Amino acid sequence: MKNESSSWSLIKGKDIPTTIELDQVFYEYTFPNCKILDIGCGTGKVSIPLASQGFCVTGVDINPEALQMASSSSVSYECTQSPLFARTDATHLPSPDASFDVAIMQAFLTTIVSKEERARIIREAHRVLKPGAYLYLADFGQTWHSQIYRERYIRDLPMTKEEGSFFAYDEKTGEVAYVAHHFTEKELVFLLIENGFEVEFFKRDTFVTRTGNLINGFVVVAKKS
Amino acid sequence: MKNESSSWSLIKGKDIPTTIELDQVFYEYTFPNCKILDIGCGTGKVSIPLASQGFCVTGVDINPEALQMASSSSVSYECTQSPLFARTDATHLPSPDASFDVAIMQAFLTTIVSKEERARIIREAHRVLKPGAYLYLADFGQTWHSQIYRERYIRDLPMTKEEGSFFAYDEKTGEVAYVAHHFTEKELVFLLIENGFEVEFFKRDTFVTRTGNLINGFVVVAKKS
Repeated sequence: MKNESSSWSLIKGKDIPTTIELDQVFYEYTFPNCKILDIGCGTGKVSIPLASQGFCVTGVDINPEALQMASSSSVSYECTQSPLFARTDATHLPSPDASFDVAIMQAFLTTIVSKEERARIIREAHRVLKPGAYLYLADFGQTWHSQIYRERYIRDLPMTKEEGSFFAYDEKTGEVAYVAHHFTEKELVFLLIENGFEVEFFKRDTFVTRTGNLINGFVVVAKKS
Repeated sequence: MKNESSSWSLIKGKDIPTTIELDQVFYEYTFPNCKILDIGCGTGKVSIPLASQGFCVTGVDINPEALQMASSSSVSYECTQSPLFARTDATHLPSPDASFDVAIMQAFLTTIVSKEERARIIREAHRVLKPGAYLYLADFGQTWHSQIYRERYIRDLPMTKEEGSFFAYDEKTGEVAYVAHHFTEKELVFLLIENGFEVEFFKRDTFVTRTGNLINGFVVVAKKS
């Protein structure tokens, strides 16, 4: 399989699917002026509103076009302080240890289709968080009751080699647009607890995908332990 | 492992955990005077109210003491027609083919800790349902975000040999009261579709166990195809 980072760095900014809204529980883990890192910020859909609420937000993403759109949008938005956007690989963040109060991964891990890379990313988020700080994570769950997703998981398993991963196709060209991974509760929980976090809050939710499908989702807050 | 049917036939009727309420979606699949089979009816907690609502209910269970309690309760309850209770193994129901309009398994499959036996039970329910009839099923999901359940699944896996199964202990004696299984969405869906059903309705829910723990749950309606 081709390197997933490169496929995400090449996708057109406007084609990046951003469908999950920030759950209100997020605000229970923030405080005025707290430093937030939005990992996989895409076009800034989460970073920009948070900056406009007064938080100190840094958004990082691997996709330059998305970051450009994020920067342009933040100018037109009423931010008390603009978010800082930086192009970076989530496995190697440029920030020093213990820099942030909260990290966000909003429908981001779904794009990382290597189990080892996901672990490296969680460890890196752990590194840049302050002791006792929180990682807020919302992502897609394997949706076996849906015939559409069931067939995708089974069809693509021989290629992806990981259950729950599948190819998403470009509607116009019919070509593979990207590879995505849907999680089980077990793998998401162990990804966190095996890489230095405790599960602080866990909610099963239902999300709507960019194509309008209903899909299982998780909203998780994990504490750096 | 000892035979799970025998352990459930010996447990005291009053000790049978019955905590899940019937979901309102159930009534979307019923009609006046429809014939309902309550598989693993226990003490009649579901069967008796349904009979009082005018449905023709048959409740089956392997536990004689529970059935006796069910029969006694149904007398004191205002049933237009009393439910019929029968002692039987769910893998060999005494009913002819195509006898029922709806079958219910309310927190029943969790007590069947053999994968093969669960498949036989679903096929048997399929046999006694009329063509196009429905199986309503509510049961417990694997709850990996809960440290309590996570530790139980891992601790007991060497004995149970099936992930998600664990021993429940009698609080007074400290002895094993019964073995229970918690499902993944994938195994529940495949249990149904590999044994003649289509998934018609699927809801992830949160249940409360008899000991007050919050736990993942599923409410499913499957159609005999």
